[in-house]
Amino acid sequence: MKNLKEQVLEANLELVRRGLVIYTWGNVSGIDRERGIVVIKPSGVSYDTMTVDDLVTVDLDGHVVDGHLKPSSDTPTHLALYKAFPQIGGVVHTHSTYATAWAQAGCDLPCLGTTHADYFHGPVPCTERLTPEQVRGQYELETGLAIVRRFAGLDPVHTPGVLVRNHGPFTWGTGPAEAVYHAKVLEEVAQMAFLTFQINPSATGDPVLEEKHFFRKHGPGATYGQ
Amino acid sequence: MKNLKEQVLEANLELVRRGLVIYTWGNVSGIDRERGIVVIKPSGVSYDTMTVDDLVTVDLDGHVVDGHLKPSSDTPTHLALYKAFPQIGGVVHTHSTYATAWAQAGCDLPCLGTTHADYFHGPVPCTERLTPEQVRGQYELETGLAIVRRFAGLDPVHTPGVLVRNHGPFTWGTGPAEAVYHAKVLEEVAQMAFLTFQINPSATGDPVLEEKHFFRKHGPGATYGQ
Amino acid sequence: MKNLKEQVLEANLELVRRGLVIYTWGNVSGIDRERGIVVIKPSGVSYDTMTVDDLVTVDLDGHVVDGHLKPSSDTPTHLALYKAFPQIGGVVHTHSTYATAWAQAGCDLPCLGTTHADYFHGPVPCTERLTPEQVRGQYELETGLAIVRRFAGLDPVHTPGVLVRNHGPFTWGTGPAEAVYHAKVLEEVAQMAFLTFQINPSATGDPVLEEKHFFRKHGPGATYGQ
Amino acid sequence: MKNLKEQVLEANLELVRRGLVIYTWGNVSGIDRERGIVVIKPSGVSYDTMTVDDLVTVDLDGHVVDGHLKPSSDTPTHLALYKAFPQIGGVVHTHSTYATAWAQAGCDLPCLGTTHADYFHGPVPCTERLTPEQVRGQYELETGLAIVRRFAGLDPVHTPGVLVRNHGPFTWGTGPAEAVYHAKVLEEVAQMAFLTFQINPSATGDPVLEEKHFFRKHGPGATYGQ
Repeated sequence: MKNLKEQVLEANLELVRRGLVIYTWGNVSGIDRERGIVVIKPSGVSYDTMTVDDLVTVDLDGHVVDGHLKPSSDTPTHLALYKAFPQIGGVVHTHSTYATAWAQAGCDLPCLGTTHADYFHGPVPCTERLTPEQVRGQYELETGLAIVRRFAGLDPVHTPGVLVRNHGPFTWGTGPAEAVYHAKVLEEVAQMAFLTFQINPSATGDPVLEEKHFFRKHGPGATYGQ
Repeated sequence: MKNLKEQVLEANLELVRRGLVIYTWGNVSGIDRERGIVVIKPSGVSYDTMTVDDLVTVDLDGHVVDGHLKPSSDTPTHLALYKAFPQIGGVVHTHSTYATAWAQAGCDLPCLGTTHADYFHGPVPCTERLTPEQVRGQYELETGLAIVRRFAGLDPVHTPGVLVRNHGPFTWGTGPAEAVYHAKVLEEVAQMAFLTFQINPSATGDPVLEEKHFFRKHGPGATYGQ
Repeated sequence: MKNLKEQVLEANLELVRRGLVIYTWGNVSGIDRERGIVVIKPSGVSYDTMTVDDLVTVDLDGHVVDGHLKPSSDTPTHLALYKAFPQIGGVVHTHSTYATAWAQAGCDLPCLGTTHADYFHGPVPCTERLTPEQVRGQYELETGLAIVRRFAGLDPVHTPGVLVRNHGPFTWGTGPAEAVYHAKVLEEVAQMAFLTFQINPSATGDPVLEEKHFFRKHGPGATYGQ
Repeated sequence: MKNLKEQVLEANLELVRRGLVIYTWGNVSGIDRERGIVVIKPSGVSYDTMTVDDLVTVDLDGHVVDGHLKPSSDTPTHLALYKAFPQIGGVVHTHSTYATAWAQAGCDLPCLGTTHADYFHGPVPCTERLTPEQVRGQYELETGLAIVRRFAGLDPVHTPGVLVRNHGPFTWGTGPAEAVYHAKVLEEVAQMAFLTFQINPSATGDPVLEEKHFFRKHGPGATYGQ
């Protein structure tokens, strides 16, 4: 238990160090699949003073099983992702500048080069708007369900992130640290794609090259790294 | 008294740490409503060496009641805001890059997503130009009055900031610290909105979602935080 | 003498601290009008290790009168400015990002707001291209003469900077420190103007407001500061 | 041998300090021409903990002759450059933001001013796309060969860098340190060129001025520096 809390705390602090959040604009969670519990950042607490004791443990129905603070208001979104994507071990939400701009633009983030293709197989999708009923109902849960619907036909391991329309990015990974890593990569490629289209509005990716790069780092034929 | 001065000093230094001002390009004030006095940054003094003893205390008519330096040249603007908006306790002025660009563009900053909607209910308005007579008369007071006129029909608590045309942003809050917090948020959402329209010139906000987010954090039904 | 060298060294180091130069991409000089000598950065020497002993002293004809290194290759440009503008005491050249982009764009930098108007009265002009003969002749001197020609009818004290076309900015001031200050202000307002036109391509300044701001800080009627 | 390893380690760390790489997004190599061996960064290893002992030494056919880790996956690209360009002593690959955006845009980076012309003689070229066969074959070698083909008629000493389409920049120099220096310069001029065209879409360089600047710093007539 303690180990997961430390991972989640460390991953939350890494968001700040990587320039992905200011104030309380983000949250990280991690899951212990065997015990069926999720550790998540408390709601509205500053990163400057956060300790492992401030983290909140909930079960997959969102009941607090440990911790003296309220969990992040985005907890139902995280839980919906853990339930739908059994392969993932950590989830991150931020309002990082460039990824949020793409989410506000309501556009899928296209793959334009190898920087993107080394981590994301194809575009990073943008969700549909929620209906007024969904927003006014169980909004945070509905956000998670909208992400899950958007991933129909997509592999969440090969596309470890999403842009929630008019909101901001969520990313995930094998654990909290990898989810933060993907949040940083997404922010970088979102900036590069913005710049690319400013330079050349008709720029396009190179699908063959991108396949090569993705599978150089992922899956049974991977050759990258040690 | 000392406590308010310390708050105002700390808030001025926070402007520098948050990257919102260089040199002397900003000022913060705070008000003691019971005593009817306002503490404000002195005019043209560097943040590097400022101490509480350099801060200036004025009454609501702008008469210096304490301090050995001249108050900020923007003092009449601050006082006009304190008089018109009795709910506010701190005021900030900066020339932060993106907010100033919107002010120079002469455009209201539209709400395009939840980052904005968590703090500002609807657009951040841009003021009308002053007339030549107003500029050549009591210019700094007229700037404050132009802000107040622009807020006819708006709630300054729900929209804690403004873009002064061809000039730059003013923000406010319950005290000096919250006013600086809003100045930083405004700068971030100004950057995001600039980027959003570069990516998609016809991007729009999602009013239902934005209502949800604003009232999740503000008012009697707020659920965010501890 | 020592005092001027220390000012020039300090101003060169300030260029680095303010993010205006990397590597050897800039230089500062200062003049002692009584003695008719100019202290300037040596050519191609790193800021990391520069000491007062590395600075070079030249007379107004460019002859080295003190120092063991070659003066900056831009020395004839600096000298042309000191000769033509007797009111100035320091000159700076950088390749700072946004000001250089405007110089490469070949556009005067228009005054769009008070941030600019607090320091520069009207646009920051961009020079004409040199002729091939001027480039192939005494190029660095011709650069200075092109600046001086561009200032026909302009007051160099009220417009303490210029964009040299396809090259980069030069700024000046009462001494080396103020020249660096103006270099930083120019870079900031160049960024703001770029952003302003991205947001609103038909944005315009407000000449009455800008007059007010400039003369609030400059000339016999100035009221800003202590 | 040790000296080259230290140069290569130092150059890899300099990439991080200059803001050109995050995580493992880059690599530097250096060559000992006499011994015919190349020292290069290991594949997928973090800069935070890298030591000289982690560096890998290969011969010009890519066989590891020293080191306990796998060499960078980009090693065949580096080797192709060393073979084709006998004058160069160090090679760098990054995914730096602005240079990568130009590579993704598929555009040569034009020379628009002296900042560029001081280091690169003419445009920084962008390669052609690889064919599907080349991507699926010896991809990293083919990348190197595409660079070499693109340099037909160009002098790699006068144009010490290239944009690999949909991928990112490679730069080179007399040794690892100069190759990193060129990587930083390329990133800066890529940002300036992006901004220049945003300000003025029909901006052009000044070839006569650019010739002057390039040959002021390069070749037998150079006058810049000590």
